[in-house]
Amino acid sequence: MPKIIVEVMPKEVLLDPAGKSVNNALHRKGHKDITAVRIGKRIELHFDRPITDKDLEEAREIGEGFLSNGVIEDVVKISSEN
Amino acid sequence: MPKIIVEVMPKEVLLDPAGKSVNNALHRKGHKDITAVRIGKRIELHFDRPITDKDLEEAREIGEGFLSNGVIEDVVKISSEN
Repeated sequence: MPKIIVEVMPKEVLLDPAGKSVNNALHRKGHKDITAVRIGKRIELHFDRPITDKDLEEAREIGEGFLSNGVIEDVVKISSEN
Repeated sequence: MPKIIVEVMPKEVLLDPAGKSVNNALHRKGHKDITAVRIGKRIELHFDRPITDKDLEEAREIGEGFLSNGVIEDVVKISSEN
């Protein structure tokens, strides 16, 4: 099934408490080289027909206006898979 | 900063209630061509040095063993950005 993938992350300037606690846990498990962990969303929009450029534009609008909170999040990537 | 991106999605066979409600809302906003929405996680592991193949292998282990629940989720993609 063709799909568009919208990836949303917390804004870089913001603290990411969930990421911080995962990072601490990974350090305790020995993964000391990981300097930071940040956790965001991966949202798949599925279609039953091939994806068009218009769909990708709409996906950006949906991503920025509906699937993320522009105050604390950024849409970092929009991609498609056929 | 170099980073590894671990992408985790709910298993295909599972219902995704959050995705379902987003899909319904998008239909009400006129995006009728979207047949399904699925919501997962995008986890960034940051490093302060170049990423090695060993890091990517470890990231898969971390993804499958720690960052996802193997009963209900799949690690669908591991990628890196330098």
